[in-house]
Amino acid sequence: MNKLRNEPPLHRVQLRMRAYRGEDIAVGPGKIALLQAIAHTHSISAAARELGMSYRRAWLLVDALNRSLREPAVATSTGGARGGGSVVTPSGLALIQCYRAIETTAATAAAAHIEALKRMLAP
Amino acid sequence: MNKLRNEPPLHRVQLRMRAYRGEDIAVGPGKIALLQAIAHTHSISAAARELGMSYRRAWLLVDALNRSLREPAVATSTGGARGGGSVVTPSGLALIQCYRAIETTAATAAAAHIEALKRMLAP
Repeated sequence: MNKLRNEPPLHRVQLRMRAYRGEDIAVGPGKIALLQAIAHTHSISAAARELGMSYRRAWLLVDALNRSLREPAVATSTGGARGGGSVVTPSGLALIQCYRAIETTAATAAAAHIEALKRMLAP
Repeated sequence: MNKLRNEPPLHRVQLRMRAYRGEDIAVGPGKIALLQAIAHTHSISAAARELGMSYRRAWLLVDALNRSLREPAVATSTGGARGGGSVVTPSGLALIQCYRAIETTAATAAAAHIEALKRMLAP
């Protein structure tokens, strides 16, 4: 379905997933956006700039994410000719895919109910 | 699926829906919880107490919700022998049902991906 064509831009429905480990959010939209930015910038600091957050905050999010997973999502190398960098690991890429699959599958399955809810909104 | 039996309580995944009208959240989990509390207490102030929020905040949420819908979700009567009260309208009840249907349908459809994501979490 083409969102630009079929939906008035005023009304938009968002389905967001958060995975908790105990009281903490292990995985949520912010961490996934950060992972995606690291995946294409290969750098926590460049990803932080792209998302308008401090390096410190990005680093803390990556550290918390890595600790909450069986296998780390981001691997950082230091030194070397290009001064090191960060890469999203295969596990991290699988996490991004899984997260997006949840969002897409959920939105597709609930599409009829979502349209019904949109029709209840004032124009 | 019995959550208590099949899932370690440590790991829990939440799919939450928010409907936007322009920049504002017209419908989200907080307003739906408030509507449900009004539906069984027949009172905005009792519902506010139940949810641990101020009467003023509950009233503002109800007012914002009513304005963002084609038909109001809550109707309030004043005066009368019992001092009036608030009821969730048929439209409001339909909104609650629709919201819950979105959550349930989404979670059911994405269940396999959700389980896969849970397996990525540290034990």
